[in-house]
Amino acid sequence: MAKGKATVGDKAAGSGADRGVSRRNVGVPVVFFDTTLRDGEQSPGSSLNASEKLEIAHQLARMGVDVIEAGFPASSPGDFAAVQTIAREVQGSVICGLARCTEKDIRTCWDAIKDAERARIHTFVSTSDIHLQHQMHVSREEIIKTTKEMVELCVSLCPGDVEFSAMDATRSDVDFLAEVVATAVAVGATTINVPDTVGYAMPGEYAALFSQLYERVPALEKVVMSAHCHDDLGVAVANTLAAVEVGATQVEVAVNGIGERAGNAALEEVTMGLVTRLDILQRPCNIVTTEIARTSRMVSSFTGQVIQANKAVVGKNAFAHESGIHQDGVLKERTTYEIMRARDVGLGESDIVLGKHSGRHALRTHLAEIGIHLDGPELDEVFRRFKDIAYKKKEVTTADLEALVGEELRQREDVYVLEHVYTSTGTDIISSSQVGVVKQGEKLAGKAFTGGSVESIFLAIDDAVGVSGKLLDYQVRSITSGKDSLGEVRVVVEVEGRRYAGQAVSIDVLEASAKAYVRALNNSATGREAGGKGERVYL
Amino acid sequence: MAKGKATVGDKAAGSGADRGVSRRNVGVPVVFFDTTLRDGEQSPGSSLNASEKLEIAHQLARMGVDVIEAGFPASSPGDFAAVQTIAREVQGSVICGLARCTEKDIRTCWDAIKDAERARIHTFVSTSDIHLQHQMHVSREEIIKTTKEMVELCVSLCPGDVEFSAMDATRSDVDFLAEVVATAVAVGATTINVPDTVGYAMPGEYAALFSQLYERVPALEKVVMSAHCHDDLGVAVANTLAAVEVGATQVEVAVNGIGERAGNAALEEVTMGLVTRLDILQRPCNIVTTEIARTSRMVSSFTGQVIQANKAVVGKNAFAHESGIHQDGVLKERTTYEIMRARDVGLGESDIVLGKHSGRHALRTHLAEIGIHLDGPELDEVFRRFKDIAYKKKEVTTADLEALVGEELRQREDVYVLEHVYTSTGTDIISSSQVGVVKQGEKLAGKAFTGGSVESIFLAIDDAVGVSGKLLDYQVRSITSGKDSLGEVRVVVEVEGRRYAGQAVSIDVLEASAKAYVRALNNSATGREAGGKGERVYL
Repeated sequence: MAKGKATVGDKAAGSGADRGVSRRNVGVPVVFFDTTLRDGEQSPGSSLNASEKLEIAHQLARMGVDVIEAGFPASSPGDFAAVQTIAREVQGSVICGLARCTEKDIRTCWDAIKDAERARIHTFVSTSDIHLQHQMHVSREEIIKTTKEMVELCVSLCPGDVEFSAMDATRSDVDFLAEVVATAVAVGATTINVPDTVGYAMPGEYAALFSQLYERVPALEKVVMSAHCHDDLGVAVANTLAAVEVGATQVEVAVNGIGERAGNAALEEVTMGLVTRLDILQRPCNIVTTEIARTSRMVSSFTGQVIQANKAVVGKNAFAHESGIHQDGVLKERTTYEIMRARDVGLGESDIVLGKHSGRHALRTHLAEIGIHLDGPELDEVFRRFKDIAYKKKEVTTADLEALVGEELRQREDVYVLEHVYTSTGTDIISSSQVGVVKQGEKLAGKAFTGGSVESIFLAIDDAVGVSGKLLDYQVRSITSGKDSLGEVRVVVEVEGRRYAGQAVSIDVLEASAKAYVRALNNSATGREAGGKGERVYL
Repeated sequence: MAKGKATVGDKAAGSGADRGVSRRNVGVPVVFFDTTLRDGEQSPGSSLNASEKLEIAHQLARMGVDVIEAGFPASSPGDFAAVQTIAREVQGSVICGLARCTEKDIRTCWDAIKDAERARIHTFVSTSDIHLQHQMHVSREEIIKTTKEMVELCVSLCPGDVEFSAMDATRSDVDFLAEVVATAVAVGATTINVPDTVGYAMPGEYAALFSQLYERVPALEKVVMSAHCHDDLGVAVANTLAAVEVGATQVEVAVNGIGERAGNAALEEVTMGLVTRLDILQRPCNIVTTEIARTSRMVSSFTGQVIQANKAVVGKNAFAHESGIHQDGVLKERTTYEIMRARDVGLGESDIVLGKHSGRHALRTHLAEIGIHLDGPELDEVFRRFKDIAYKKKEVTTADLEALVGEELRQREDVYVLEHVYTSTGTDIISSSQVGVVKQGEKLAGKAFTGGSVESIFLAIDDAVGVSGKLLDYQVRSITSGKDSLGEVRVVVEVEGRRYAGQAVSIDVLEASAKAYVRALNNSATGREAGGKGERVYL
């Protein structure tokens, strides 16, 4: 028995081969297709602007993601522009755009991605009777016809890299599903995706579906077969790995598992499953695992989607044994309670990086080390804010810098700028706030007396700018430990029936609250609606 | 094809039977063993006091949990008392206590649970060579001997309900594991638990391990076989369901999936998997699914463990299709994108419950409806705070009441009480705070000038009480929507090298911050350390 290795796999009928499951593609690397910027970004509460999307895309490429689904270009002009920028600037990964099976969507998608080093058009059509009858009102024949014509169009534009998804595949009649995907492959689709759109499948049946498709459509052996799983029943990662075990060659994942409803299979969990259990899964991948923690923090901070402490791989407690937290006994052998090391996912490097005497060059160099390249006025602004914080806070950490830069990236397109906020509050007194907001050069003042300090600030801002936002969500987290930690505030505000998110970082939680609220109003003024700015696709 | 039903299961080789997996116990109900109060509670940052544990235990019983693991009585006097109270007061569920395989632990455990309507002693020993060699330094023979003697002791104390766990079962030699569990059954263990202690197994191999044990030890057909899975690789729920599929008759789960590291299989996900996929899993359970949302909120609030938005079943976005959020199209058929209904898990009932004219009787009645039974001074205090909030806030919701009561339960054993706090803060000025704290009748005053408003409050409290707490974590969430929402603040504070959590709710986030910090200092003064107050067990 090998130390620290499972023995059940060795002796058991547990691995796919032993269970009588027909395995394909043993040893073949798994293609990682990341949909953080498409399926992840359209989840409620998320609101990335173009700069943030670009920064995340760069980080995904750095982490070794093979295919980046950058967005859904036909959904809105903003999404088109974001996808186009990523296609033009991000190298090393295939840049993919999503398009419904219509000529307009596909041509728009191609226009957005055609400048990429390597581009992919991803189109889809539903194959389940429940979708055909209740949502689309089309016949099976029409589905086949659409598939043929539209995949042909994709191939004519983007020969050599076209992905076709059979939406709601897991609730589709398998014979019809096989017919549709065979049609797509016959006209040149190079990747076939079999999504569990509603998160209904269990691992055994999802794997079986792949096996059945391979059996019914021999041509599938020549293309990439892809798993796309939603976590409604908590088994998205297991479903994904089960598909890989029987031969799937691509996984569609999102960082931190974000996405519609319960989200997608988490990139970091699928990765660490493949890496940690290479012994039985026998499928390598290209993900640079040491970039996982940083990517996770970036996506959480930019999207405002909090990661729970017990989240696998990237939660605060996931590696509690190594985190210096009180332990009852010294663990003499690491593997006694550990199957992964925190440093394998990029946690636990020395984190204190800069102090108040650090200069502009040191800041620039350190930002570059963590993959953030800033120059000119952007660097100046981040440096100014860094000095401001370094003056109040002894040590500025990597996490602080990430938070600061995140905010700087958000500040590029502002209608409103918070100039000042003053608040008095206390037990049994009515809180009062006064704010100054600059709207394109014009100074606006606002004031309010009301129950709580945060409420009084938000009402004072409403008073200044002349809108009335309804607060839907308010969250604060500390970026690092210590009473002088930066506080990051995240708000979701409804203005005239639409939802906008805002986030800000400050030493002072009230100032951060004010800035976050102003940020949400800026997103409102510039139409950057939170979650599903344009059309949404539930793939 | 039935509407809204998967067809893959029908036609595929996906279900266990079709995969050649030997199925057992088809149709037999699954016993739910909840370890929220033991494995969940010992996770870092959690700090439940005895009242909170009792309240959660009552709610677990109400939800239909078959066995409540109430704690680890030998770990600390506090844990003993909490388990004893639960054993004496909670009815309808078996009350279980954990004990290491020592006479002292087992007798202490029995003393704590013996007054229960139905009691269970749960003991365990490690069976993996890696644990035997590196952690325990014992031979396999000694493990067999200990198992026999200690299970015999358990059975002599608690005949008819003894659970034995083979710690690190999934990394154990299966022949030795079989020998150990056969020994435990031979001397009277009625439940055998096969934990994946380090979260290493994949669903196929975990299921195979159960099948192998059933084959090697025929006596296991006569006892309850239990799955206990950790989520380090994100597959705890899938592993649990895979074990059930081949015949496991008990699942060990925690609400919201909390627990050591990445936590345990989530109760709500395992439940909804069993319920939603009864068609292929064919195993009913006794969980009252409509109590899931409330239980989840209670555990999150009491433990301070935030639930991420995309968490399956209980996350804020899990049922986004039904939540009234902006949708692009009207869904004509619910099942098009939905496999569960929000109301099945207790979400979406009318939530506005009380206003400022509501009386004490209405409050008491509504609390009773949501399962919270208060009388006398406790009810008086909650009523006073309810009126206070109803005066400032138009509508007091169920979630508000839950938060208020949560805080009330925390206030029962206080050394320090915050009397008042006044704060002034603003852009480019130094924040100032003054606080008054009463320490057992003595009035203490404190003040501070410093960078941020929250920091100034915490330093003023330090100044008043004469301690110096180090802030490790700070989080705020809004309880409901609206600028006048209650804010819930959660802090984790280190005092003299030990960690204490504090939580408080107020209309004003600064007041809530002050109260939460004082609460953490109270926990410090009364020794209620956060997470693993006594010995911890990594099962």
